[in-house]
Amino acid sequence: MNRRAVPAEALGSLLLFATVIGSGIMADRIAGGNIAIALLGNTLATGAILFVLVTMLGPVSGAHMNPAVTLVLCMRGHIRVDAALAYVAAQLVGGIMGVWLAHLMFDVPLLQLSTKLRGGGGQWAGEAVATFGLVLTIIGTMRMRPESVPTSVALYIVAAYWFTSSTSFANPAITVARSLSDSFAGIAPSCVPAFVAAQMVGAVIAHIFSGLVFPAGPQNAALVDGG
Amino acid sequence: MNRRAVPAEALGSLLLFATVIGSGIMADRIAGGNIAIALLGNTLATGAILFVLVTMLGPVSGAHMNPAVTLVLCMRGHIRVDAALAYVAAQLVGGIMGVWLAHLMFDVPLLQLSTKLRGGGGQWAGEAVATFGLVLTIIGTMRMRPESVPTSVALYIVAAYWFTSSTSFANPAITVARSLSDSFAGIAPSCVPAFVAAQMVGAVIAHIFSGLVFPAGPQNAALVDGG
Amino acid sequence: MNRRAVPAEALGSLLLFATVIGSGIMADRIAGGNIAIALLGNTLATGAILFVLVTMLGPVSGAHMNPAVTLVLCMRGHIRVDAALAYVAAQLVGGIMGVWLAHLMFDVPLLQLSTKLRGGGGQWAGEAVATFGLVLTIIGTMRMRPESVPTSVALYIVAAYWFTSSTSFANPAITVARSLSDSFAGIAPSCVPAFVAAQMVGAVIAHIFSGLVFPAGPQNAALVDGG
Amino acid sequence: MNRRAVPAEALGSLLLFATVIGSGIMADRIAGGNIAIALLGNTLATGAILFVLVTMLGPVSGAHMNPAVTLVLCMRGHIRVDAALAYVAAQLVGGIMGVWLAHLMFDVPLLQLSTKLRGGGGQWAGEAVATFGLVLTIIGTMRMRPESVPTSVALYIVAAYWFTSSTSFANPAITVARSLSDSFAGIAPSCVPAFVAAQMVGAVIAHIFSGLVFPAGPQNAALVDGG
Repeated sequence: MNRRAVPAEALGSLLLFATVIGSGIMADRIAGGNIAIALLGNTLATGAILFVLVTMLGPVSGAHMNPAVTLVLCMRGHIRVDAALAYVAAQLVGGIMGVWLAHLMFDVPLLQLSTKLRGGGGQWAGEAVATFGLVLTIIGTMRMRPESVPTSVALYIVAAYWFTSSTSFANPAITVARSLSDSFAGIAPSCVPAFVAAQMVGAVIAHIFSGLVFPAGPQNAALVDGG
Repeated sequence: MNRRAVPAEALGSLLLFATVIGSGIMADRIAGGNIAIALLGNTLATGAILFVLVTMLGPVSGAHMNPAVTLVLCMRGHIRVDAALAYVAAQLVGGIMGVWLAHLMFDVPLLQLSTKLRGGGGQWAGEAVATFGLVLTIIGTMRMRPESVPTSVALYIVAAYWFTSSTSFANPAITVARSLSDSFAGIAPSCVPAFVAAQMVGAVIAHIFSGLVFPAGPQNAALVDGG
Repeated sequence: MNRRAVPAEALGSLLLFATVIGSGIMADRIAGGNIAIALLGNTLATGAILFVLVTMLGPVSGAHMNPAVTLVLCMRGHIRVDAALAYVAAQLVGGIMGVWLAHLMFDVPLLQLSTKLRGGGGQWAGEAVATFGLVLTIIGTMRMRPESVPTSVALYIVAAYWFTSSTSFANPAITVARSLSDSFAGIAPSCVPAFVAAQMVGAVIAHIFSGLVFPAGPQNAALVDGG
Repeated sequence: MNRRAVPAEALGSLLLFATVIGSGIMADRIAGGNIAIALLGNTLATGAILFVLVTMLGPVSGAHMNPAVTLVLCMRGHIRVDAALAYVAAQLVGGIMGVWLAHLMFDVPLLQLSTKLRGGGGQWAGEAVATFGLVLTIIGTMRMRPESVPTSVALYIVAAYWFTSSTSFANPAITVARSLSDSFAGIAPSCVPAFVAAQMVGAVIAHIFSGLVFPAGPQNAALVDGG
């Protein structure tokens, strides 16, 4: 494994999660109570940073920044199990640092726990669909038009923030990290396990059924050279 | 015909229509009654998912997700009649599943009929113009700069959501599917036939007059290999 | 001259101007009186359709859709005088048809005159700056990175809608055409001459001073084969 | 040094800073007091013009338009010290002209001093993080995918306007220039030194640690031929 891959996953997760949390706090503070306006700002920031991070870190580590993506790419043989475990650890540690960095920037206590309850059948379905779509986008775009992966991943999340009832966490690491922020993007710790389970179900379904739509074949090595 | 083409049309339509309906419900719920803010969210989500779907499914099936597009490409000899019929069936079945998936995610009854009346000369003209522009965009971009088809299709719809009085359905399958959702993006079933007729008129006009602006010549095979 | 160039200019101007006027009417109707929200919708639609039109019509006619652009490209020897005159006529005729098409779609009287007064030193400076920047963007991007012309033209106008005090008409044909619509994007006929004069000043300044920043050299033939 | 590089830096800074200030004034005037809506307009305009300027001026001067970027590229050996000093002078002079041009367009007094206080630990951390991220984006994207530099720089700033508590000045020249405008984007002169210091810290940290994530190697000459 490329020795820069794990630091890249940590740094990418740090910047991504700081953006998700930070733009949520900013948007919430200035949107005058209109949640749709706040979500527009949150969406724009998240989509924009995703393009940047996948563009520059993709060739280094694959720019997963998401244990569900790492799991599926491990199941597909693109990354070894030991590397995958190091990736997930880097995503969690880097991502939580990103949450605290956002708190530092916005002058709120570093250590928080969210009190925002999220859940129920609709939102769990939302998380499964959101993660299914994300993993399918990654598998399909890597296979058919690898040069479009950064744009497609960013725009998929832009859409998913709006078309799923849960605003698309679609990422177990960010779900854990968001539980540590009592802000716009937060989720109460007690709601985390069901969200993560739904995400894993969606990811695995995408892995299993992707062959119905996309032919098997060589993946873009540049995106998966972490293994 | 590529055996993955029909599943790709069904899956693409499912995700596209779930996005149109789902982002409409989300935007409507959180926009505080400001329709323009809701339409911004609906537009962003629809344009973003269109880029993603046309990018990854275009090389598989052409990513029509629209019977008016399939009809015109059949008239232009890019897809055989039997394949075209299978495409349209996949678009309708997949798309309606997408509507129900959106309903499932947002905890509303799966089976609904829209009560939103849409119609009148202005809106019918809007649908004809919207579909004319969409089909012209597809014909012209495939001919002149095929690598830009995903971006052009997505951005055309972004524009058309705002410049047409009907917010640009421009797709007979999505018109039928939207009649099954009593939400922001819905249309009453009684209004569907006139919308579809206007769309077909616009599509056929674009087909007939495209030769005035674009030279005849080879189309991008990757986008039309469903036939 | 390519026999498709003049129809392409007419069709492009029709769709562009219909978008500017139509999205202005739509945004104004649904934005609940918040002009910034209306301008966001108007901006998004205009930028999006510009990308689409320049992408597909650029290789046919250069996709000027703007007499100030045609004038400068004529002064730079990229298009002959007779062709330039035909372009300008097509832009005006096509563009005015586009305004009327927008009126038809939105169920308002076809024939209107705007009553919206626009002018004063600040706005005239705004039009000169807006057109200077547009022409510089076209000259510079055609010279340095021709493949980015559609994106750069679209994004320049997105920026200029917001950073100029006049919301950046930057186009004599659209200024005339907007005087025929008493809506969000309109301008009173009496205000048109000063706007057009300011635009011409900005365009010619960009032509004269572009050599300070961009080296002379071959332009992208595909974008200027109207001459 | 290319004799067009310094004029290109001055012109780029003029247009960039005019956009930041001008779109701030416009957005503030029409947003009806909703700061998030104003920031959406400001963000859209800034990101859009950044893409345009980096695309067309990148091959001429590198399109730094930012002394922190010039400093780091000088430390990395991409531009000589004398050229770097000329760049910074051009950025400041051009940028301040841009502020005054915005004031001219919006009919406000040319000479102003901002009274908007910005600062405190959170915002200083915000500036350090914002500039760290910008410099890392430039170093990383130039190294891994140089064709994506214009898009990545533009989208990084779009994200940073929202995820940092300071709305991401991330540029010493624009910080000085903004102190000369008592408008939406302004900053009181007394607050400038701390912002600039924080930016420099962030830039140098990105320079030092970039090697942990990105391999050393040839940079894209076209982007750094100012030296």
